[in-house]
Amino acid sequence: MTNCFNVVTFAAMATLNFDLQYKDNTSNARAGEITTDHGKIQTPIFMPVGTIGSVKAVSQQQLKTEVQAQIILGNTYHLYLRPGTDVLEKAGGLHQFNHWDKPILTDSGGYQVFSLAGTRKIKEEGVTFQSHIDGSKHLFTPERVMDIQRSIGGDIIMAFDECPPGGSEYSYAHKSLQLTHRWLDRCLAQFNATPDKYGYTQNLFPIVQGATFKDLRRQSCEFIASKDAPGNAIGGLSVGEPEPVMYEICDWCCQHLPQEKPRYLMGVGTPWNILECIGMGVDMFDCVMPTRNGRNAMLFTTNGVINIDNKKWEYDFSPIDEGLPCEMSTYYSKAYLRHLFKAQEILALTIASVHNLSFYLWLVGEARKHIIAGDYASWKTGMVVKLKTRL
Amino acid sequence: MTNCFNVVTFAAMATLNFDLQYKDNTSNARAGEITTDHGKIQTPIFMPVGTIGSVKAVSQQQLKTEVQAQIILGNTYHLYLRPGTDVLEKAGGLHQFNHWDKPILTDSGGYQVFSLAGTRKIKEEGVTFQSHIDGSKHLFTPERVMDIQRSIGGDIIMAFDECPPGGSEYSYAHKSLQLTHRWLDRCLAQFNATPDKYGYTQNLFPIVQGATFKDLRRQSCEFIASKDAPGNAIGGLSVGEPEPVMYEICDWCCQHLPQEKPRYLMGVGTPWNILECIGMGVDMFDCVMPTRNGRNAMLFTTNGVINIDNKKWEYDFSPIDEGLPCEMSTYYSKAYLRHLFKAQEILALTIASVHNLSFYLWLVGEARKHIIAGDYASWKTGMVVKLKTRL
Repeated sequence: MTNCFNVVTFAAMATLNFDLQYKDNTSNARAGEITTDHGKIQTPIFMPVGTIGSVKAVSQQQLKTEVQAQIILGNTYHLYLRPGTDVLEKAGGLHQFNHWDKPILTDSGGYQVFSLAGTRKIKEEGVTFQSHIDGSKHLFTPERVMDIQRSIGGDIIMAFDECPPGGSEYSYAHKSLQLTHRWLDRCLAQFNATPDKYGYTQNLFPIVQGATFKDLRRQSCEFIASKDAPGNAIGGLSVGEPEPVMYEICDWCCQHLPQEKPRYLMGVGTPWNILECIGMGVDMFDCVMPTRNGRNAMLFTTNGVINIDNKKWEYDFSPIDEGLPCEMSTYYSKAYLRHLFKAQEILALTIASVHNLSFYLWLVGEARKHIIAGDYASWKTGMVVKLKTRL
Repeated sequence: MTNCFNVVTFAAMATLNFDLQYKDNTSNARAGEITTDHGKIQTPIFMPVGTIGSVKAVSQQQLKTEVQAQIILGNTYHLYLRPGTDVLEKAGGLHQFNHWDKPILTDSGGYQVFSLAGTRKIKEEGVTFQSHIDGSKHLFTPERVMDIQRSIGGDIIMAFDECPPGGSEYSYAHKSLQLTHRWLDRCLAQFNATPDKYGYTQNLFPIVQGATFKDLRRQSCEFIASKDAPGNAIGGLSVGEPEPVMYEICDWCCQHLPQEKPRYLMGVGTPWNILECIGMGVDMFDCVMPTRNGRNAMLFTTNGVINIDNKKWEYDFSPIDEGLPCEMSTYYSKAYLRHLFKAQEILALTIASVHNLSFYLWLVGEARKHIIAGDYASWKTGMVVKLKTRL
């Protein structure tokens, strides 16, 4: 790994440990175990998105017993606006506030600033933006975002980056990448200069950018690898580029990121996206798809995709999905869930969200089993076809 | 009990049994046990309202483990419109459809027809009304409502009655009561002429009406008592009349309804309403208040009433209510629940609904304990003051 950029690195050994337990012979898939101060995470793993400290329509009890989540996400942009760092600090951090005692990862807020906020302006210093809630003006700098994530208290926190829009030109992507790299050094400096707030270790993951350009992605991977962070993320994918391009860039990044550190592909994706990217060597995933699509009556199941809103399920009293270790998926029938959606009952949103998340967690667990069994590639090929089936 | 109206009574002994276990010496409160084919119910009891086969924002799992509900309600009007009796029959009844294996009570749809539906017309035959969903025209007759409730499959089903609006004149209330009584005879005839559909016994409860007029109420109680039904309901209260009038009429009805049958006060009410009416001899309650008020950020707690939306809870990290045997009430803090309401998160509705229902079930359970201990009246006096406190 090149070390030429290694100006700012980690001051102290982070407690996050990644034990790379198995490597598949038929693909680049691997199975491992991440240890944080809030417990262990078996990889590959999917992380449900808990936007403002709550996974939409799902209780923390359901996350534990039904979904069997091992780590959840919090969004820095949302948590900064509501409830705000003042409340979170007085609570003793997000774990105390939402009473989730397993690991938490927070994003940097960058993606939301670019996708959600009103008028925003990118400068060397940082980004000024308007709150989507009340239009108030705010400034996110790399230093400020580190401070905010210190206050939130995630076990894993993310560097502040610019995520260029899908279809960005080379010149813009190049300029943006250089800014992201300068911001990373500022993030690291601030991170190293500030202590953990709540008695457990926080771990900063840098993010690879570079849009769809291989040379920029390679440059970014090497710069990021030089920081020797406890884990590395791939950002800026699944933002509008064609699926084959996403796969190509993800694979390319995995080839240029350290083997011995967990790789986190941000914001991806469908169940088949996840299986393909596990095969490339990705260890961690997050996406709003299981909850957002669930709230729109789209279910991912062990037999394929279901639009539960459809009339064809009106008299289907079979369980939503008998193949999952999730009580809700076997307890409620397709006809009942369809009825709840038709009647716009809140419980419909909960059942669909819990089911889809359980399915995602089951899927990465099955992937792990097949990596360990050594037949990941062949299993994946069959599963991708099955999971894409429209029922 | 007068027997002069006893033209139509029950053809066969119903399996619903009411074991009157304890009578309080200091009030008319009583503790008992109702046995149905879907299990036992300890009285006094509160029944969560599961409008269309789902208690709003609450899963059946939460109803069992957190709320500890012993029986839930279904609304005939809503279930008839969606999913419809065809779906419910093919499912094998509501218990199979929503997978709730404890007792279910269905109302007659009368109240909803009068309060929710569009243009409606009351005739001797029944009521024509328009669906609030699509404006389609429907006719509810006593016979039709019995058939619908047979198809839904509640353990306890209700007679089709007219519920006169609050503040009705004597002449209207009198006329309406006579109609309700004629409809009751038609309900009984149809009920007796039709078999149980799903292998367990359904039990028809008649409803006392008569607005706020004691002579009409007495007449109604006597007519209803003459039917020797397995239980009797008091309807037409909490429809706009002053609280003291509601108490006076409820007390009056309890005095004129059989002692040995459970008494069900429909649609009432606040926690203090429930304690007062238990003291008069009511055994069963239902009300949308815990769920509806919960969804509007109003919490009933063991220490008084909380508007959780209020800024005063912003930094209050104490549990919602430590006095309840409900995990959600102790797991989540006031500050966290307030945050979820402010951010309009769906989980807020679930936590508030589960908490309020748990509180109601806890309250009737405590009432039962004090009836058995023989100090109900003095306990109630203190509790009513405490529960009304605005925190």
